[in-house]
Amino acid sequence: MNHPLLSDAEIIAAWQANAAPWTKAVRNGDIESRRLITDRAVVDAIVSRMPNLVLDVGCGEGWLARALSSRGISVIGIDVVPGLIERAQQAGGGEFRVAAYEELATGTLDVLVDLVVCNFSLIGKESVDGMIAAVKSMLHPRGTLVVQTLHPLIACGDQPYVDGWRAGSWAGFSKDFVRPAPWYFRTMENWTRLFTANGWHLEELREPIHPRTRKPASIVFIARML
Amino acid sequence: MNHPLLSDAEIIAAWQANAAPWTKAVRNGDIESRRLITDRAVVDAIVSRMPNLVLDVGCGEGWLARALSSRGISVIGIDVVPGLIERAQQAGGGEFRVAAYEELATGTLDVLVDLVVCNFSLIGKESVDGMIAAVKSMLHPRGTLVVQTLHPLIACGDQPYVDGWRAGSWAGFSKDFVRPAPWYFRTMENWTRLFTANGWHLEELREPIHPRTRKPASIVFIARML
Repeated sequence: MNHPLLSDAEIIAAWQANAAPWTKAVRNGDIESRRLITDRAVVDAIVSRMPNLVLDVGCGEGWLARALSSRGISVIGIDVVPGLIERAQQAGGGEFRVAAYEELATGTLDVLVDLVVCNFSLIGKESVDGMIAAVKSMLHPRGTLVVQTLHPLIACGDQPYVDGWRAGSWAGFSKDFVRPAPWYFRTMENWTRLFTANGWHLEELREPIHPRTRKPASIVFIARML
Repeated sequence: MNHPLLSDAEIIAAWQANAAPWTKAVRNGDIESRRLITDRAVVDAIVSRMPNLVLDVGCGEGWLARALSSRGISVIGIDVVPGLIERAQQAGGGEFRVAAYEELATGTLDVLVDLVVCNFSLIGKESVDGMIAAVKSMLHPRGTLVVQTLHPLIACGDQPYVDGWRAGSWAGFSKDFVRPAPWYFRTMENWTRLFTANGWHLEELREPIHPRTRKPASIVFIARML
């Protein structure tokens, strides 16, 4: 059995507890890897597919919607944390709704988009597995899925390279953060399987390089329905 | 300009110089990672696709052909090094021919197989790029390409994570080895691009785990024509 603090439910609870400091950190540009590399990496990946309408799954306080809308791309953002959706709505740049990933599978969202993006928002287990399967029903034929996440080989650290729950940390963040969210580690093999087993063709895999470490700062999967 | 010792031509020259000690090392099981993990990994990947006829590109002294033929799979092996092909022919288990990767593109080989395998044999630059493009003409429709190679994130070591030539080493091998072959490092991003840009669908990516380090001992790409 999983520890109760290592679960999809705990991820949501942790983010609910950190909506305010997270919004501040993102809007102040406090997170160096985002400011230097990964924000641009996800925007570039999306823009390369020239979508008109994007669904941002796990949109948080909405920075990506604002970045895309400034480039003429319409965005619908969903997040399960009301405190983040409220802040996104206040800042504008898209249409924002409170929704759990599980609701994507039930069709209650009723949207049809050109591209679905998940930017560092696939950190759980069952909810992610279900989302990758369900999201197809929200995409136009030939639509694209863009996922940016921690690079497995880098994020693995000294631990064994096997799928499993890992404890979170707010090391490097301000003292306002509490209750770090756990995350579910996936190997490259199993990320790839998650896509291909659900009928996706992996068109591109990008590894944005951190200018200081000269190693990947993240991994970006760009997939299309087969 | 590349250093003359960092080139596809130097790889071939180095292997020509090491045909005898290499054959001995493979047949004695001297290479721990092969004995423990990667030999089985490539056989499992091939068997999972149930081919009748396999083309082994860069077959060396022929161990893989013998392993597959013992499982009822027919094998044609090619290698550019005559000293390795002679030894493969003597040991049997397949049909072995001296051929450069470039000859795959010219159609002189005149074979049609169910599966092409490259087991630690894609270590060059231009020859590899050309091979991945050319090999399609030798495969039945829905045929499979299996490539096992060094895992980029592990093989990168402390160097910057960018494509480029690297010096070889025979560290850990017997004193009979001379003239280590250079190799061309490719990131995960560029391995994936090499496949997708040539019309391959990456069906699976496997990361056989080394039981001692608990990290990937190699990476196995399994691709099919789109």
